[in-house]
Amino acid sequence: MAYDDQNIFARILRGELPAIKVYEDDKVLAFMDIMPQAEGHTLVIPKSPAETLLDLDAEDAAYTIQIVQKIARAIEKGLDAKGIVLMQLSGASAGQTVPHVHFHLIPSSIHELGRHAATMGDTDKIQALAEKIKAAL
Amino acid sequence: MAYDDQNIFARILRGELPAIKVYEDDKVLAFMDIMPQAEGHTLVIPKSPAETLLDLDAEDAAYTIQIVQKIARAIEKGLDAKGIVLMQLSGASAGQTVPHVHFHLIPSSIHELGRHAATMGDTDKIQALAEKIKAAL
Repeated sequence: MAYDDQNIFARILRGELPAIKVYEDDKVLAFMDIMPQAEGHTLVIPKSPAETLLDLDAEDAAYTIQIVQKIARAIEKGLDAKGIVLMQLSGASAGQTVPHVHFHLIPSSIHELGRHAATMGDTDKIQALAEKIKAAL
Repeated sequence: MAYDDQNIFARILRGELPAIKVYEDDKVLAFMDIMPQAEGHTLVIPKSPAETLLDLDAEDAAYTIQIVQKIARAIEKGLDAKGIVLMQLSGASAGQTVPHVHFHLIPSSIHELGRHAATMGDTDKIQALAEKIKAAL
């Protein structure tokens, strides 16, 4: 499918929409999910315009997963997380809601996750969690 | 934590336990999950002895995610999957049951997944699904 450059993550990448960022470089952005399935739910996205992991350039995939590791370690350290769920949904049929490839990092158990993309979180609380993750990077 | 080389994936890698393999090279193995959360549930593991994604060497992570992409495309094609859930659990607290880093590829929706590591699948059926994935590689 053709990439929709009006999706909300594309707009965040262009600075047209706000995000609570925890990490950014020239290829990857990490920011807080505003509909968290657990406290500290963070998203890591490549900047290249791919809809799913299956479409993503191999080099971008390789780099992005290394940043996923980096952010996961910061979540573990900064939020004292005992376990982290990495989730990545390819296709609306899988539950993907934004058509730009994104990796979810959720400090929780797979057995206790809140429903995906269901409930808005509290912005102040999310901002405070982001600060802790950033401090641990 | 020290890597436990008696975990079942380490034993599969050493050939001490059987597995329904779909792909193997010198760094990565992909095989069917025998407790599938949906039909076609496949695991991709690096051969290096790391317990979680957080412990995994960055180069191994980069290579493994590229094979995850390759297997995901074969699942999409071979099983006509409309969506794929990638899941990777770091830590027993996240629900990780085998202490060797592994990526789950599950052709399903996050909203419809069966419970993790809960029910044995039918071996003949799993073998038939593996053949379809292999044929699409």
